[in-house]
Amino acid sequence: MLDKFQEECGVIGIYGHPEAAKLAYLGLYALQHRGQESAGIVTCEKSRLFVEKGMGLVADIFTEDCLARLPGDIGIGHVRYSTAGSSLLKNAQPIVVDYAKGPLAVAHNGNLVNSKSVRSRLEKEGSIFQSTTDTEVIIHLIARSRKEGFVDRLIEALMEIKGAYSLVILTENSVIGVRDPYGVRPLILGKVDGCYVLASETCALDLIEGTYIRDVEPGEIVIINSDGIESRRLFSVNKTAFCIFELIYVARSDSIFFEKSAYAIRKEFGRQLARETAVEADVVIPVPDSGTYAALGYAEESGIVYEKGLIRNNYVGRTFIEPKQSIRHFGVKVKLNVVKDVIFGKRVVMIDDSIVRGTTSRKLVTMLQNAGAKEVHMRVSSPPTIYPCYYGIDTPYKKELIASKYSVDGICTFLGATTLAYLSLEGLFKSVEFGKENFCTACFSGKYPIKLPCFFKI
Amino acid sequence: MLDKFQEECGVIGIYGHPEAAKLAYLGLYALQHRGQESAGIVTCEKSRLFVEKGMGLVADIFTEDCLARLPGDIGIGHVRYSTAGSSLLKNAQPIVVDYAKGPLAVAHNGNLVNSKSVRSRLEKEGSIFQSTTDTEVIIHLIARSRKEGFVDRLIEALMEIKGAYSLVILTENSVIGVRDPYGVRPLILGKVDGCYVLASETCALDLIEGTYIRDVEPGEIVIINSDGIESRRLFSVNKTAFCIFELIYVARSDSIFFEKSAYAIRKEFGRQLARETAVEADVVIPVPDSGTYAALGYAEESGIVYEKGLIRNNYVGRTFIEPKQSIRHFGVKVKLNVVKDVIFGKRVVMIDDSIVRGTTSRKLVTMLQNAGAKEVHMRVSSPPTIYPCYYGIDTPYKKELIASKYSVDGICTFLGATTLAYLSLEGLFKSVEFGKENFCTACFSGKYPIKLPCFFKI
Amino acid sequence: MLDKFQEECGVIGIYGHPEAAKLAYLGLYALQHRGQESAGIVTCEKSRLFVEKGMGLVADIFTEDCLARLPGDIGIGHVRYSTAGSSLLKNAQPIVVDYAKGPLAVAHNGNLVNSKSVRSRLEKEGSIFQSTTDTEVIIHLIARSRKEGFVDRLIEALMEIKGAYSLVILTENSVIGVRDPYGVRPLILGKVDGCYVLASETCALDLIEGTYIRDVEPGEIVIINSDGIESRRLFSVNKTAFCIFELIYVARSDSIFFEKSAYAIRKEFGRQLARETAVEADVVIPVPDSGTYAALGYAEESGIVYEKGLIRNNYVGRTFIEPKQSIRHFGVKVKLNVVKDVIFGKRVVMIDDSIVRGTTSRKLVTMLQNAGAKEVHMRVSSPPTIYPCYYGIDTPYKKELIASKYSVDGICTFLGATTLAYLSLEGLFKSVEFGKENFCTACFSGKYPIKLPCFFKI
Amino acid sequence: MLDKFQEECGVIGIYGHPEAAKLAYLGLYALQHRGQESAGIVTCEKSRLFVEKGMGLVADIFTEDCLARLPGDIGIGHVRYSTAGSSLLKNAQPIVVDYAKGPLAVAHNGNLVNSKSVRSRLEKEGSIFQSTTDTEVIIHLIARSRKEGFVDRLIEALMEIKGAYSLVILTENSVIGVRDPYGVRPLILGKVDGCYVLASETCALDLIEGTYIRDVEPGEIVIINSDGIESRRLFSVNKTAFCIFELIYVARSDSIFFEKSAYAIRKEFGRQLARETAVEADVVIPVPDSGTYAALGYAEESGIVYEKGLIRNNYVGRTFIEPKQSIRHFGVKVKLNVVKDVIFGKRVVMIDDSIVRGTTSRKLVTMLQNAGAKEVHMRVSSPPTIYPCYYGIDTPYKKELIASKYSVDGICTFLGATTLAYLSLEGLFKSVEFGKENFCTACFSGKYPIKLPCFFKI
Repeated sequence: MLDKFQEECGVIGIYGHPEAAKLAYLGLYALQHRGQESAGIVTCEKSRLFVEKGMGLVADIFTEDCLARLPGDIGIGHVRYSTAGSSLLKNAQPIVVDYAKGPLAVAHNGNLVNSKSVRSRLEKEGSIFQSTTDTEVIIHLIARSRKEGFVDRLIEALMEIKGAYSLVILTENSVIGVRDPYGVRPLILGKVDGCYVLASETCALDLIEGTYIRDVEPGEIVIINSDGIESRRLFSVNKTAFCIFELIYVARSDSIFFEKSAYAIRKEFGRQLARETAVEADVVIPVPDSGTYAALGYAEESGIVYEKGLIRNNYVGRTFIEPKQSIRHFGVKVKLNVVKDVIFGKRVVMIDDSIVRGTTSRKLVTMLQNAGAKEVHMRVSSPPTIYPCYYGIDTPYKKELIASKYSVDGICTFLGATTLAYLSLEGLFKSVEFGKENFCTACFSGKYPIKLPCFFKI
Repeated sequence: MLDKFQEECGVIGIYGHPEAAKLAYLGLYALQHRGQESAGIVTCEKSRLFVEKGMGLVADIFTEDCLARLPGDIGIGHVRYSTAGSSLLKNAQPIVVDYAKGPLAVAHNGNLVNSKSVRSRLEKEGSIFQSTTDTEVIIHLIARSRKEGFVDRLIEALMEIKGAYSLVILTENSVIGVRDPYGVRPLILGKVDGCYVLASETCALDLIEGTYIRDVEPGEIVIINSDGIESRRLFSVNKTAFCIFELIYVARSDSIFFEKSAYAIRKEFGRQLARETAVEADVVIPVPDSGTYAALGYAEESGIVYEKGLIRNNYVGRTFIEPKQSIRHFGVKVKLNVVKDVIFGKRVVMIDDSIVRGTTSRKLVTMLQNAGAKEVHMRVSSPPTIYPCYYGIDTPYKKELIASKYSVDGICTFLGATTLAYLSLEGLFKSVEFGKENFCTACFSGKYPIKLPCFFKI
Repeated sequence: MLDKFQEECGVIGIYGHPEAAKLAYLGLYALQHRGQESAGIVTCEKSRLFVEKGMGLVADIFTEDCLARLPGDIGIGHVRYSTAGSSLLKNAQPIVVDYAKGPLAVAHNGNLVNSKSVRSRLEKEGSIFQSTTDTEVIIHLIARSRKEGFVDRLIEALMEIKGAYSLVILTENSVIGVRDPYGVRPLILGKVDGCYVLASETCALDLIEGTYIRDVEPGEIVIINSDGIESRRLFSVNKTAFCIFELIYVARSDSIFFEKSAYAIRKEFGRQLARETAVEADVVIPVPDSGTYAALGYAEESGIVYEKGLIRNNYVGRTFIEPKQSIRHFGVKVKLNVVKDVIFGKRVVMIDDSIVRGTTSRKLVTMLQNAGAKEVHMRVSSPPTIYPCYYGIDTPYKKELIASKYSVDGICTFLGATTLAYLSLEGLFKSVEFGKENFCTACFSGKYPIKLPCFFKI
Repeated sequence: MLDKFQEECGVIGIYGHPEAAKLAYLGLYALQHRGQESAGIVTCEKSRLFVEKGMGLVADIFTEDCLARLPGDIGIGHVRYSTAGSSLLKNAQPIVVDYAKGPLAVAHNGNLVNSKSVRSRLEKEGSIFQSTTDTEVIIHLIARSRKEGFVDRLIEALMEIKGAYSLVILTENSVIGVRDPYGVRPLILGKVDGCYVLASETCALDLIEGTYIRDVEPGEIVIINSDGIESRRLFSVNKTAFCIFELIYVARSDSIFFEKSAYAIRKEFGRQLARETAVEADVVIPVPDSGTYAALGYAEESGIVYEKGLIRNNYVGRTFIEPKQSIRHFGVKVKLNVVKDVIFGKRVVMIDDSIVRGTTSRKLVTMLQNAGAKEVHMRVSSPPTIYPCYYGIDTPYKKELIASKYSVDGICTFLGATTLAYLSLEGLFKSVEFGKENFCTACFSGKYPIKLPCFFKI
């Protein structure tokens, strides 16, 4: 899964720390894998908000000067990979507004499914939107609410929206965390130097030497202010639906879920994959970097030697200029190269975590064959991705998902591989050791836990 | 060996290809690991040279517009990590001049040891230098020569210089490759679309779909022009002295040396290391990315499980801003993170390819211990680095090399590791399967094959 | 009046011309004197708006590439010098929104006096503002209106606002010009290549080879669309109040008002000033460039020789760095220099169009004296500026206006001049040859034709 | 003479002032009219040179940060408009080198006529040039000299060059001023805060509050160091040849020459022109800004009213984008506009200081006629420019000079003017009140005081 199509967003919030902006910056840096398109930090001092946003990477956007323009001891941050709204600076988050009740900033991870209809209604009543993000809908709903306290206005707004959302909100005197009733996207609560922190993943705590307290619960609102921390319930749902793809691909491998690292979970996927889809071979190689952990598990379980047969180029830039007399597989070649003497004459098992369009996998199979591989057995550490995600993972439309068009045999033919096999859904959950009923598996099963409007094009 | 101290330079040359600039660009991209400070390409059309240089990475410097300003079918390129001359754009190579006999551009990988005295003599005679690179000395010597043909002028110039140099030279009608008599730095000859190519490593050929022909020999001058290819001998030396560190660290793992990939050679170092320095342990982990291949070999040979216990952050930027309330091991932590459940309660073997100052290794040992490692056994896949390099590898002065100050036991104490062991010099060459007498091992042995001026501070 | 404090804004609109963006660009270039802080152009093609804005000068912001991103045959533009709203890109105009009824862009010259109270009311009802400009208030009022047609919604909105406004509005199929009922700011209608053009001044027509048709009338709405041109009346007022300062300073000297150029009008001010305030002297010099035309008139009428005794530096940059050992009158000196032999031993009449704070004038008087002037008689071609403007001219608060604190004698003492005299209000209007009752003279008389809210700080 | 073709260069030098860089910066700012292409300052502290150069205007290049990187109490500066060497940053001056005897920087105003042959000889001997400026020849000659002291090496170098040069040179302990034996370009000596200053014109002293001491004499070398000031003679020539065009156009109007301002001299040209070429007319207008002073003189002498009939746009940018349906005289129109009511129905005398190609003048004549001028009498305050300059004024080749192709009548026909007349050579020198034999008048007379190599294309 070389293609950069599954990233989503990362959020962070800090309350009461004298270096709120710097901690937010480091937290975002640790969450960079969740979005590389844009990043932003908002802090608050004396009821005034300070905003810095930019396109690109956290380490490039936030210079010393830039952080110096972010005073105050409360702040929130966001890294974004656009899944809704086009890729413009004006869509960079956190979204900041001044409305009748004061300043407000919101950072959102996830995707709403009814934002279009709500937006349309609000516009008819005279609201003017400044961005095309679904997040702005939430803000307008808050501004429209006639409730007295901020949290009540927030709850009234949330009652109208449907979809996946982990929110971190900054008001002039509080930081608030919200997780949608299904808990689709992660959000955790921790502490650093005695101050509360909200973040998408535990890896953000590691870098700033914080400690993990607990997950924000599905449907929970956590309000952090000068009175301490308070928890309110949005409303309850019978079941939760945590995104299984967070474990398969999105999360950083050192982040902790259900008391295990994503690394350990993914390696277990690989072991289970070896059990389910064993094959005679000389060498196991990962598709870097997405297949690495499953490949280690597969190699260990199967006893076949693990090698890094594909080398990733560390200096990949944004674009590459190709000669007119074009180079075969140019797009993949500038990123990866085959180590020939590791592959030549070998029966190769190539592991990846998923197959989306299949085009990159096909090029890799060919590159291995050209390098002299006798056989290429592709193994995938998750079930076939048949359905698109509407909850924040940037998958393509259904017709572009190869597994929605072909059987496993058909895909194998398309790839030109010797054999192809996927991890079963049962195998997947056996590895997770946590009830399947708690997860969203829509991309494999087509069972969407949060109802979609009928106009959604699947 | 996390620290970026050993890179040197990479060179490329193309003769007679309609897309000379684009091939040079892709070649430099593949050689980017040899220097990330600056890059430059010079092409020639109708006796006029065209130059584009910049600070930073190849993929950032050379845009479509930039390449369009480089017409012509012959060209040379250079990526640089400064080992001589300070890090300024004016020192970026290729160095281009117009002298009495026409335009000339030179790209240089290596380091001269007598450039100061030659420069001083030339300046006394009225020459004016525009850069502080030792490469410019070669150009002034060429300009001063009274010989008729260019190659004779070049040879006269080379007779006066001592040190390590692999040169690619562009004149208005030829591309010339030169390798010093000891062959310290690599330089290979290949072909692409029927045109000759010179490059530092074979990996540059892979990306542009070229084929490897042979190494340029130590002391050889290869002249490529409209008459085809011609070879001349500079003068012979009894022995060659190829830099062993090219195999240990510098070269890209998929480049071929003596018919084997650097990957295979490094893995064999790891196997030999396991044979020489076996230890009871639960897990073998590499220091990413320098220890990866040796760690794979070590794990395979020892039968101990291989894990990626240290995760590298893929989004490392140029600088990081630290909070005032400083974070332990901040500099290392922004680059690496420990995967705790892979390490906790384990006896760990940590593999790296070398230890220079020892400060990073010490931090990693502590990080592993803090993550719950029961024992940390450090293993190094080369002998202790005791002496600095004067031939183009950017090692620090002797006093900063930890192995020049302490015994192996002393270093182990400094690192705080449970045990420490290095690969022996014999083991190293057993793995290479190519006579030790052909290599420069000065950094391990202090035996410098090319005599150093007495003022060199070792 | 060297200080750059009186500029305001310039607007332009083009309907139905294949090169709408280019004409808008040239029109704005000709209107650049009305605002140098930011500029913007919005065009419309197939119901979609295209926007380009930037900080700085028109000629720097709009490159060939930039104009190529502005397709369509209708467009509007704006140059801005902030009189309301702080100086940020987000406040650059035209302001563009997408609201329920489609896209909309508005360019505004002038200043509203009741925007705060309207904004506050709208925010209480849930509107969220994206800028701090008073122009955005108009847009929200339009978006809130329940009327059917756009012009009816616009009229409903305009009924709620008070102040000075010349608007050029772009909808997906029309360009609309509006002038407030008092006609405080100018707005003219012209034609180029058979297409209608709206602009702040006639000089915009000259550059694009257009022809002047007529002024947009006070209180008139001019709608230009595929049906041609239509005029509607906002509502009538008994009297108009065209800003007299447009004639004294703001407008470009070659723009036409009441069938005369501002040049001719200003020269007549100078002649009248000579009649009213004659003095024995050797030389008449202008404060460049503001006093030039009045000085020419003064010299002609008085028969005293006209000289350019103060030379303006043509290369004045944004900021200047002063030595620590500071230079007297540094800020003025980097802009102007005295030509000594024109001044030495002379009785000098120095002419300017107005005096605001008096600090610059005082420095100039001293510079002339230091250069050897025997006497310095300051003459001002308008009455004393005693009251601030609230209708779009960026005058300082009353307490900073020197004429609000001192009598003419007091000002003369402050300046250190030999004598000081102003043009009388009667003399001013005698020169204009157009009834005094048609003008706003609030800055001289304190009679504000549009009622100010009581909280305005005069 | 709207076209920017006559600018040349400006130089400045400061010795012993704690704010040397800031004074150099302000001096260059005052000399900006002598060159707007690039600027540079070099200072020296503890034998080390510090350099800052850039393309563009002084006020844009030298920020506070930039000046902070220029420590030391001695420095020199240069503004450049390329007359020799193409317009690249590498040609920006001062040219700085490190040669055997230490660091050296040279700033040059003027043009050498034998630089090609000297350069060619030096290159044959092995010198390598880094720029294409003729100034670098001087530096190589200095570096080649075997003389002991710097001044002797400098004199040996100067003996080999021919042409026009006013030099300001920086060594590690001195600032040196040199003026060629003919004194073609100006160079003056002054003092500020007790420290010596060298500059191209007196206007540089005015801004920094310095006092004028005397001109550097033709053929003089002025050495300023810790011993004070010393003067040496290069060698004497029978006659000097100060460029008459400095008085006509190049110099800033407030600079002093022969105890009079350029302003006064130019106005006298205008008076004399009126005496020689009287005509019945209603109005005298200058071509802005070059004809301003002569027009004032002409109006005064003739008694005809002076008007600014052409208004210059103050915001002219680097380039302008023209509509496809092109605008007549677009290039001139974006810079100038006619004030119609000043011109309509009038007999106009239009004054300029010279006519080069005639194309701009022709457009202006047409613009005036289109605006309703009954007659357009062009008057030029210098004789016809028939021959190109080889001493540093950037005139075009002879064939492009309209006066070399046509008689005065022929030019008048080309311009479409009613009449045309030039100031006579005798009239010119009558106005200067300083012997004609002291000036270079080659551009009018073809008598080149410094012999040109035969290959010069006149």
